[in-house]
Amino acid sequence: MTAYETLEQRFARLSALREAAGILHWDMSAMMPPGGAGARSEQLTALDLTCHELMSDPALADLLDEAEGDADSLDTWRQANLRGMRRTWRHETALEPRLVEALAKAQHACEMTWREARPASDFAAVLPGFAALLKLVREAAEAKAAALGCAPYEALLDEYEPGGSAARIDEIFTDLAAFLPGFLGQVLERQAAQPAPRLPPGPFPAAKQEALAHKLMQGVGFDFDHGRLDTSLHPFCGGVPDDVRITTRYDEADFTGALMGVLHETGHAMYERGLPPEWRLQPVGAAAGMALHESQSLLVEMQACRGAEFIGYMAPLARAAFGGQGPAWEADNLLRLATRAAPSFIRVDADEVTYPAHIVLRTRLEKAMIAGDLDPKDVPGAWNEAMESLLGIRPPDDRLGCLQDIHWYDGAFGYFPTYTLGAMAAAQVFATARAAVPDIPAALSRGDFAPLMAWLREKVHSQGALHTTGDLLKQATGKALDPEIFKAHLTARYLG
Amino acid sequence: MTAYETLEQRFARLSALREAAGILHWDMSAMMPPGGAGARSEQLTALDLTCHELMSDPALADLLDEAEGDADSLDTWRQANLRGMRRTWRHETALEPRLVEALAKAQHACEMTWREARPASDFAAVLPGFAALLKLVREAAEAKAAALGCAPYEALLDEYEPGGSAARIDEIFTDLAAFLPGFLGQVLERQAAQPAPRLPPGPFPAAKQEALAHKLMQGVGFDFDHGRLDTSLHPFCGGVPDDVRITTRYDEADFTGALMGVLHETGHAMYERGLPPEWRLQPVGAAAGMALHESQSLLVEMQACRGAEFIGYMAPLARAAFGGQGPAWEADNLLRLATRAAPSFIRVDADEVTYPAHIVLRTRLEKAMIAGDLDPKDVPGAWNEAMESLLGIRPPDDRLGCLQDIHWYDGAFGYFPTYTLGAMAAAQVFATARAAVPDIPAALSRGDFAPLMAWLREKVHSQGALHTTGDLLKQATGKALDPEIFKAHLTARYLG
Repeated sequence: MTAYETLEQRFARLSALREAAGILHWDMSAMMPPGGAGARSEQLTALDLTCHELMSDPALADLLDEAEGDADSLDTWRQANLRGMRRTWRHETALEPRLVEALAKAQHACEMTWREARPASDFAAVLPGFAALLKLVREAAEAKAAALGCAPYEALLDEYEPGGSAARIDEIFTDLAAFLPGFLGQVLERQAAQPAPRLPPGPFPAAKQEALAHKLMQGVGFDFDHGRLDTSLHPFCGGVPDDVRITTRYDEADFTGALMGVLHETGHAMYERGLPPEWRLQPVGAAAGMALHESQSLLVEMQACRGAEFIGYMAPLARAAFGGQGPAWEADNLLRLATRAAPSFIRVDADEVTYPAHIVLRTRLEKAMIAGDLDPKDVPGAWNEAMESLLGIRPPDDRLGCLQDIHWYDGAFGYFPTYTLGAMAAAQVFATARAAVPDIPAALSRGDFAPLMAWLREKVHSQGALHTTGDLLKQATGKALDPEIFKAHLTARYLG
Repeated sequence: MTAYETLEQRFARLSALREAAGILHWDMSAMMPPGGAGARSEQLTALDLTCHELMSDPALADLLDEAEGDADSLDTWRQANLRGMRRTWRHETALEPRLVEALAKAQHACEMTWREARPASDFAAVLPGFAALLKLVREAAEAKAAALGCAPYEALLDEYEPGGSAARIDEIFTDLAAFLPGFLGQVLERQAAQPAPRLPPGPFPAAKQEALAHKLMQGVGFDFDHGRLDTSLHPFCGGVPDDVRITTRYDEADFTGALMGVLHETGHAMYERGLPPEWRLQPVGAAAGMALHESQSLLVEMQACRGAEFIGYMAPLARAAFGGQGPAWEADNLLRLATRAAPSFIRVDADEVTYPAHIVLRTRLEKAMIAGDLDPKDVPGAWNEAMESLLGIRPPDDRLGCLQDIHWYDGAFGYFPTYTLGAMAAAQVFATARAAVPDIPAALSRGDFAPLMAWLREKVHSQGALHTTGDLLKQATGKALDPEIFKAHLTARYLG
């Protein structure tokens, strides 16, 4: 066996162990009784340590060197796979064991404090643990930067968005920050002139919401022979490509949240399912990054399902599912409801117009923290100021401000920008698909995603991680990520 | 760290990885969509290979030698733990990698053929694969016998029943085979003189069966903060001690099967939950063996729940749960139904009187196969003859005969005897508990298992694998396994 072939075997083993951990994470959120937490933590730690040891094996480093020395003999697919292996290896081995352990402990400690501090809106309580954690994260960023040969923040970003450019994100977000406040003002003015949307009256029993969700998921193309829908406190898409586990939570007073949430996760699931089966368990067979992943969920949810065609299809089905009556069930009203924009404090509840402002804010602050330009104690002030400048509202307390998201308090820096990069990519990919396949709108008005998904599968899903997100976008849409397309989408939908 | 301390760390890692596999197995049976099978197989294989490599590490063998050389410095708990480590290591490393791989392939191939051959009652179809598998199993038995220093069949038995004696099983089963036919004749005669039991008329909706099962499980002591009840094709008790996952399947025409099945699995679950928390992930903290495990499920199901006290409690609850009416819901009738004996072809449907005959038959045949005294092609004839001599009935085809159980076709030899050893141990332990705690019958008549479980926890569950099953029985009941107590139980219940 060549060095490269041995590496394929080793990475297949690693990926299968990580998939096992993925199923255990799903179970933890969707099935596990509370008393199982301690044992589950032992199981996941054992898997983590085992993977880390497999990756830190000096023989693996030698194999990578040897395979790279002979890379010219490999085809482009194997070269891309080898690059993915090296990248994964760099991330996994960049930190000394001492730092890995210190980080794990600090993350756990800070997250535990945060869980109590958030409802109490008590930033002071979380500050010492958060400051200690940030210090270690900055140390890790330096170590990764050295290993990857880039700047510290970019090294963190790279974990979620391979090859992502912090400078380009800066440009894009600066442009967005300039565009959004004025645009939002116009949208609010226009909405004020329209009839206010009405939430259809409930209650909406969870079982009926679930049945409707199943039907719509099947229309998107979700295959229940290869996946499940369950409930969990925080909705997510987990599992593995041939067995995708998506979750939601039902609010019996408002069916729209869970329904749109399920469609969002279904978009993630379709990407996972569409990854090339023959590339399974290899780095090149994985998703290209979190921005592209988010683009696929937002393409389904924001671009397709909140559009007039799909809402026109869904409205009578939803009315029938819940036995609803009255004008709140009209498609026009449901469409206004699905595209209502308004400044608000909580990111996860934000609409697509204001969401990017939440992301711009977080990206600015986390970059400053990693650079050492923003002290943790000054985060609440910086947060509130940025909210005021971007959305014109000021959080009355830190619960509605800088304590709302788990990310930082769990040590995750560099993830936030992928949400908005994904929203932009979604607009760009959807616009290209609609231009390439004229059937798409008519099919969506019948709840049928087949023409859209066929195009996505060919142009996006089947590419795995063969290209960076940037290169893939160029291939699929003819150009690099172009914020103007996202702005054009917002303008057409909200001011059109 | 001493060698022994290092071993504790290594075995904790191994156990946590095996626990991870346990949860994945549960998920596979209870949750996984069919399309996930391929990926799950990769995940489980990766875990298996990883565990096997950890166990085959030459450094582990050195640590075992070193710790054993210094065993006098260890307390008795650590000595028992070290013995358990060595035993696990012997089983895991006895077979050459070539044989492990050949066995895995032959098992998979034979089991796949069996899945089609059973419904078609086509033994000829499974014969070549079965013969090939048996050849490998015999080779493995020889290798394990050499590693453990015992006879080949005993080496297979030892995997399920550590320290089990094949000679003692022979004695016990010879005695049983002599006792059962005559005893069964008397039971059938007596039953013929009583009113025939009537199955209450259904249907019994699965959701109502489940709600009733939950209530009765809670009476047994099952803690839903540390476990779940779900459905699967083949009921089992899986998961891990702090998160026990039991399953059942519901027949809407007959609620009794699922209910007694759930109570059976609850007995297994209570044993797992009662294993000492501070011994988790160490060999000495596991169950003492499958016979004792089965004794705990049969103690709950057969000894307690099919007794007059518990049936008297359950009858009105069941009637209310299903809105039942009429004499079929009387406790007397339900008790006759729960203790009806009759010869039948299928082991898993057999009553407690005829069940041992099924086990005696299988044990005889599998011992002969391992010894080379029974050729696979002669299994159907030998099976049918033994059925006739033990139960007086002859299977009309192999579907109802030698093709009914998965065990042999999956390569599992040496497991069957533990069912009946468990039934006997259950009778012995229950009799001791009732004598020691006079409250038990009155509590069972209120559906309250607390006094029984408190005794079991102290005398059985909390002992883990500190002793062999034989020694534990001596400690808990004052004597070694005594078949007379089981016979006395049958006599009292069926002829009393």
